[in-house]
Amino acid sequence: MRLRHIPEADDAILAHNKCIKNPEKYYSSWSNLFGNDNPIHIEIGMGKGHFIIEMAHLHPDINFIGIERYSSVLYRATQKYDVLEEKPANLYFILCDAKDLTSFFAPGEVSVIYLNFSDPWPKKRYAKRRLTSPIFLSIYSKLLTSGSLIQFKTDNRGLFEYSLETFAKSPVFDLCCISFDLHNDEELSKGNVMTEYEEKFSALGNPIFMLVAKKY
Amino acid sequence: MRLRHIPEADDAILAHNKCIKNPEKYYSSWSNLFGNDNPIHIEIGMGKGHFIIEMAHLHPDINFIGIERYSSVLYRATQKYDVLEEKPANLYFILCDAKDLTSFFAPGEVSVIYLNFSDPWPKKRYAKRRLTSPIFLSIYSKLLTSGSLIQFKTDNRGLFEYSLETFAKSPVFDLCCISFDLHNDEELSKGNVMTEYEEKFSALGNPIFMLVAKKY
Repeated sequence: MRLRHIPEADDAILAHNKCIKNPEKYYSSWSNLFGNDNPIHIEIGMGKGHFIIEMAHLHPDINFIGIERYSSVLYRATQKYDVLEEKPANLYFILCDAKDLTSFFAPGEVSVIYLNFSDPWPKKRYAKRRLTSPIFLSIYSKLLTSGSLIQFKTDNRGLFEYSLETFAKSPVFDLCCISFDLHNDEELSKGNVMTEYEEKFSALGNPIFMLVAKKY
Repeated sequence: MRLRHIPEADDAILAHNKCIKNPEKYYSSWSNLFGNDNPIHIEIGMGKGHFIIEMAHLHPDINFIGIERYSSVLYRATQKYDVLEEKPANLYFILCDAKDLTSFFAPGEVSVIYLNFSDPWPKKRYAKRRLTSPIFLSIYSKLLTSGSLIQFKTDNRGLFEYSLETFAKSPVFDLCCISFDLHNDEELSKGNVMTEYEEKFSALGNPIFMLVAKKY
């Protein structure tokens, strides 16, 4: 997601108590920041934060970190956070590129990665930028431990097919769940927290695709 | 595949030296029939036999068994076999329903199962009849040993999506290869032996879908 540039965004993020400055200083010690040893779930490309804020509310025993690379987008999330009546303590944000995550998290420090409605980069020459390209799977693999999960949702059929192919090819991940119509799957749709985009898109009757991959 | 009934088919199959009568008598001893300990690959729903006959030619160190439930269809395969100049010794046929395979093969006796362009049974109420339904995966699992493979090809998108979902859900199989366009995948298309149907269908520019699942 890319919004028009908001000039005040960078300063606002720097000043916000939920946006982590210099996240490398928590490498291997995120539990200190949260004040507990609960599992850490991160959303890469959190957009305006609808999903991760609701997840943080629903799962107080899990520590959530939202990752977003565009300051104008993360700024919208912080605004949303600021007007919450109940502000979840188990939630932080990082402004960064997904490629840098291995500098911020020690091997195995993350339990679950969420990828929701990532940019499809439909042109083949930009395939490497897709968040499910082999380059990124290799990065995620370093953050996760055996048994950890990646949950990926999209409405883009081309990106979904590409992602199934890359996950199947990866020797590190096991595709343990696939759905071509998440919202009509009685079992899988239980407990599904929708993103803002997902709500709008599925209201039009379009299917949502989901896969879950487990690290061996 | 279903052809019109051919009255002489049943008798011709009974008389054919490559069609196994009472296959249960080879349970756990197929290597005796073939006269060697080579791995056994079976094709379930072999149709008119184009694929398995070519595979038998190409891979003399593998023992092939083609399974077909319709006598009129298997009869066509035997006719094709009979006119071959070089008749592969490493090939037999069985007229039977896939549900009965556990009576014919001991656990682990089969190394690879091929499912090519199986009937899609598109209506939901017939989903159990699809050769990639959980019922059949459970049967296949009994024939295979750890590390054994199932290779499934289809041009039917609905059946392919259903199959990906069932394989992912199965705790017995690991989806180790997925392609939404087999013939345009440089690596996977190498060594791909096409069925008759696949040749015709892909010549029209339609994609061929493939998955490979490995038994844990």
